[in-house]
Amino acid sequence: MPQSQGCYLEDLSVGMEASYGKTITEADILLFSGVSGDTNPVHLDEDFAQSTMFKGRIAHGMLTASLISTVLGTKLPGPGAIYLSQTLRFKAPVRPGDTATATCSVKEIDTDKGRVTFACDCRVAGKTVLDGEAVVMVASKSAS
Amino acid sequence: MPQSQGCYLEDLSVGMEASYGKTITEADILLFSGVSGDTNPVHLDEDFAQSTMFKGRIAHGMLTASLISTVLGTKLPGPGAIYLSQTLRFKAPVRPGDTATATCSVKEIDTDKGRVTFACDCRVAGKTVLDGEAVVMVASKSAS
Amino acid sequence: MPQSQGCYLEDLSVGMEASYGKTITEADILLFSGVSGDTNPVHLDEDFAQSTMFKGRIAHGMLTASLISTVLGTKLPGPGAIYLSQTLRFKAPVRPGDTATATCSVKEIDTDKGRVTFACDCRVAGKTVLDGEAVVMVASKSAS
Amino acid sequence: MPQSQGCYLEDLSVGMEASYGKTITEADILLFSGVSGDTNPVHLDEDFAQSTMFKGRIAHGMLTASLISTVLGTKLPGPGAIYLSQTLRFKAPVRPGDTATATCSVKEIDTDKGRVTFACDCRVAGKTVLDGEAVVMVASKSAS
Repeated sequence: MPQSQGCYLEDLSVGMEASYGKTITEADILLFSGVSGDTNPVHLDEDFAQSTMFKGRIAHGMLTASLISTVLGTKLPGPGAIYLSQTLRFKAPVRPGDTATATCSVKEIDTDKGRVTFACDCRVAGKTVLDGEAVVMVASKSAS
Repeated sequence: MPQSQGCYLEDLSVGMEASYGKTITEADILLFSGVSGDTNPVHLDEDFAQSTMFKGRIAHGMLTASLISTVLGTKLPGPGAIYLSQTLRFKAPVRPGDTATATCSVKEIDTDKGRVTFACDCRVAGKTVLDGEAVVMVASKSAS
Repeated sequence: MPQSQGCYLEDLSVGMEASYGKTITEADILLFSGVSGDTNPVHLDEDFAQSTMFKGRIAHGMLTASLISTVLGTKLPGPGAIYLSQTLRFKAPVRPGDTATATCSVKEIDTDKGRVTFACDCRVAGKTVLDGEAVVMVASKSAS
Repeated sequence: MPQSQGCYLEDLSVGMEASYGKTITEADILLFSGVSGDTNPVHLDEDFAQSTMFKGRIAHGMLTASLISTVLGTKLPGPGAIYLSQTLRFKAPVRPGDTATATCSVKEIDTDKGRVTFACDCRVAGKTVLDGEAVVMVASKSAS
């Protein structure tokens, strides 16, 4: 197993959690637009965005959601885990300058299948802007 | 309603679909790593990635997933739609150089609530690498 | 013809128009500097820019001009059109935070040659900052 | 006048020229797409681009054109010059990996108005891919 390997199944227990926070800047929104191709004017055109219910530009929901995959892929369980599925509920907008923090906590461990379910949420100033559930496949020490 | 407004509820019918395709380059993976903070070595470190079951670097699952939000936010239903939820199942890796095409098709329309459910998938060379379902709130002409 | 194909010659008539608006952020100016190599301090150095007639940093004229190609390449006539020529007159500076909106309207259609001339302008808060003319080659349905 | 000031009118003579060359990478095309919002699939989607007359992805014409403004804004005449107008003729595609070199040469100097006309071209491997003319306002030493 490579040196950067994250947690093994045996390292995890229900309730463990990890977080990743990031300030979402205009630059993040711009780069995400290029990478995704999502140039919806609600993200990029302040004049248009002012005319919507959001009253100003907002970040892409998937940009905020990507912070969840950062927790799973770099912290808990970390490198080596296989991302199987994710549900996402978008609850409130994230605006340029907001700091969003994603938290994932172990909700369920299926030892037989090597699958771990995480409860995930992203918050801005303590308020949930996005939540959902992730299922990740994690290697067992005995199998490695 | 602003000029860039996409489809209204009355414009949609079950079976309508739209696609967005994009070649996923190393630059996409790099920028997505910066924006998301997801620096998992399976995306960025060829030596590490070679040692995994993927036998080489792969794109972030959320990067591929973001192409779905591009279809919803720029094509069908387009600007003005409110993204409520998304489910994602990651089925196969996307590698640098692959062209991934996201397709969203109208599966169900709840006229009372103004909610539209889309079946979504992303394919590389015809093979599904990711699928899921999106729910989007779409304005009615009568309400605007 | 590919699925993403935009308008055919037969779809166009004089007076048709489309727009694309974008807030020009510091990140846009930074990335445009990197991509173009245009590191003129009037774009990047506030101290220098303050000493010029502009009294502060301004966006690259070509950055604003690129919004015209966005209209032509993604909206009207959209994918498949071949960009033949463009004239540009830079009339006023665009500053970080300004929202610039490019509008292209069909001015002339040469059916024999498959060439369409567009009158183009970019405005900030209703004031023209750049205008010009584009000539684009558009495929005919009969030829496809 | 600030330290970074470029040429004055008196420094210029017909025939003077300067160049700027840059390899156009996939990363440039990606970033230019985000900054401009031009996500035309001929630039970003290899599958689509293969189906066009270009048989593969090409750079945005305006990206190549931006190299001209780099010459004018950083070399000849350099900082302090005011970009008044530009004509562009797109003659051949630029592909990821191509190195494009823009050259601007002084064609005409209108001393009374302080206007200088430049003949501009961009070449890849010696072949002109874009040409045009720029008019720039340049300060006179006597006026400064």
